[in-house]
Amino acid sequence: MNIEFHMKEITVHAPATVANLVCGFDVLGMCLNEPYDIMRVRLLDKKEILIRSTDGYNLPADPAQNTAGAPLLSILEEIDQQVGFEVIISKQIKPGSGIGSSAASAAGAVVAANSLLGNIFSKEDMVRFAMIGEKVASGVKHADNISPCIYGGITLIRSIFPLDIVPIPSPSLYVTVVHPQIEVRTSDARQILRKEVLLKDAIRQWGNIGGLVAGLIKNDYDLIGRSLEDVIIEPVRSMLIPGFDKIKQNCKAAGALGGGISGSGPSIFMLSKNEATANAVKDAMQEIYTDIGLAHHVYVTTVNMEGVKIVNAVSS
Amino acid sequence: MNIEFHMKEITVHAPATVANLVCGFDVLGMCLNEPYDIMRVRLLDKKEILIRSTDGYNLPADPAQNTAGAPLLSILEEIDQQVGFEVIISKQIKPGSGIGSSAASAAGAVVAANSLLGNIFSKEDMVRFAMIGEKVASGVKHADNISPCIYGGITLIRSIFPLDIVPIPSPSLYVTVVHPQIEVRTSDARQILRKEVLLKDAIRQWGNIGGLVAGLIKNDYDLIGRSLEDVIIEPVRSMLIPGFDKIKQNCKAAGALGGGISGSGPSIFMLSKNEATANAVKDAMQEIYTDIGLAHHVYVTTVNMEGVKIVNAVSS
Repeated sequence: MNIEFHMKEITVHAPATVANLVCGFDVLGMCLNEPYDIMRVRLLDKKEILIRSTDGYNLPADPAQNTAGAPLLSILEEIDQQVGFEVIISKQIKPGSGIGSSAASAAGAVVAANSLLGNIFSKEDMVRFAMIGEKVASGVKHADNISPCIYGGITLIRSIFPLDIVPIPSPSLYVTVVHPQIEVRTSDARQILRKEVLLKDAIRQWGNIGGLVAGLIKNDYDLIGRSLEDVIIEPVRSMLIPGFDKIKQNCKAAGALGGGISGSGPSIFMLSKNEATANAVKDAMQEIYTDIGLAHHVYVTTVNMEGVKIVNAVSS
Repeated sequence: MNIEFHMKEITVHAPATVANLVCGFDVLGMCLNEPYDIMRVRLLDKKEILIRSTDGYNLPADPAQNTAGAPLLSILEEIDQQVGFEVIISKQIKPGSGIGSSAASAAGAVVAANSLLGNIFSKEDMVRFAMIGEKVASGVKHADNISPCIYGGITLIRSIFPLDIVPIPSPSLYVTVVHPQIEVRTSDARQILRKEVLLKDAIRQWGNIGGLVAGLIKNDYDLIGRSLEDVIIEPVRSMLIPGFDKIKQNCKAAGALGGGISGSGPSIFMLSKNEATANAVKDAMQEIYTDIGLAHHVYVTTVNMEGVKIVNAVSS
């Protein structure tokens, strides 16, 4: 491989993502404009990965144990050049929040490294590398956060082996996300799921997935709203999230199209057709968590059509 | 209700349909241009339903037990007028073939009756009435054949209770259907299915449904082909169909995008991008069933965008 290095250092915004989108457990995901991690990645002249962080999250500094580091180690194995990367992570997406914190680190590192290497990898390649970071984070090589983080917009993982990523066009959507300040580990949230589901529930779920995909592509907001129903995962996982049912109910009353658990939780997201509704939904969320005295963050944002964004590049 | 009767007798073509479309068990269905039943429905001046057939299938003449009769009885209950219907059925779609024979009778009768009544019912209303015919035929009120038969094209049943039918746009598709002359009862084909499925299989299936719906709407033939995969129903039901695996394999080798069991079988359908491929697929199917000495019918047709079609109307 003949790589020319035009850039020496790149800064990216690595955005939060909402996996599952209620009915699409493990297959659907959506990229958000906020929040995002800020990552500075610098090209080194020897085969090594250095991880530094400027946040207080105390994530592993050993590259092999770090969600940004592990994919980069894998990239170094793939290329011949004597290069390495230093990554400085300023995490804004709290780990364990359920909005793709580990995916952002992995995707951000891979997109920045690929750019420093002269864009030698395709988006699909980058997803493959970044999935290695998800394995470090949760023990499972899933792509439902990684894909939208790298492709932008909404993506469907039609198949994970072999990897088949389908970008799903969508109309303008506002997203309100509330993150109650409790931690739900992805691994715990997976463990409480049953290994088998009733065929009749699976049928209901695939009707909703078909409906959601059709609604998104056809700009049919009502169909999107009706399809945001999960009869399999949500009834189990929502028990881990204080006030879940009430929040869902009040947000819909405030005009949200629908929504549910973001990824494995504890964050809850709601989709709205316009900003005013998204703000009313925010108020509804805040009221409930204020009432029960639970600390929380709320974001009102939109679908990020770009994914990881290069915001600064310093030439060599 | 104030009904004006413009027509005294109507003849319709009630087409065959392919339910499930491989990955969309109980939710997806597609209307075909051939074969179709020919049904003549005449307005009577008293509240009664008369069923006559000009084919040799020996289907029940008692309206309550007949798939065309039961929906019409239900329509009579709904309206005030002292009217009834005589239905003369010339069945071309063999019962038990798996291409929506019972749905065609039910949908054809309802569409014709609605036209005779001055089109007082919506398409969704008509699906509800026709589903009563499916209950008579198989014991289950399913809509995956009825909906495409009435709406035309490809439909998704997002939800059966409450009924939510989503028309799915599709690109031009050729359909080859082979009907091996063995009978698989819908009720038997349902009974052999397990009541529970593995979550991992359900996830794979909903990836495929999302992919198929996206591929159809986006005119992405390759995605349609990749999504025509069923890891839940087909492995069980295909055992009831002689030569299934070989047919699938040879049809794909002949250029088919993919395909599988039509409804609950025994018919097998394959989708192709053009007519030449659809004909090559036909040859592949015929070769296999000729080799094993199994009588069969093959149809090469296209997606019927109209559904039940009124071909003749005699004024009063």
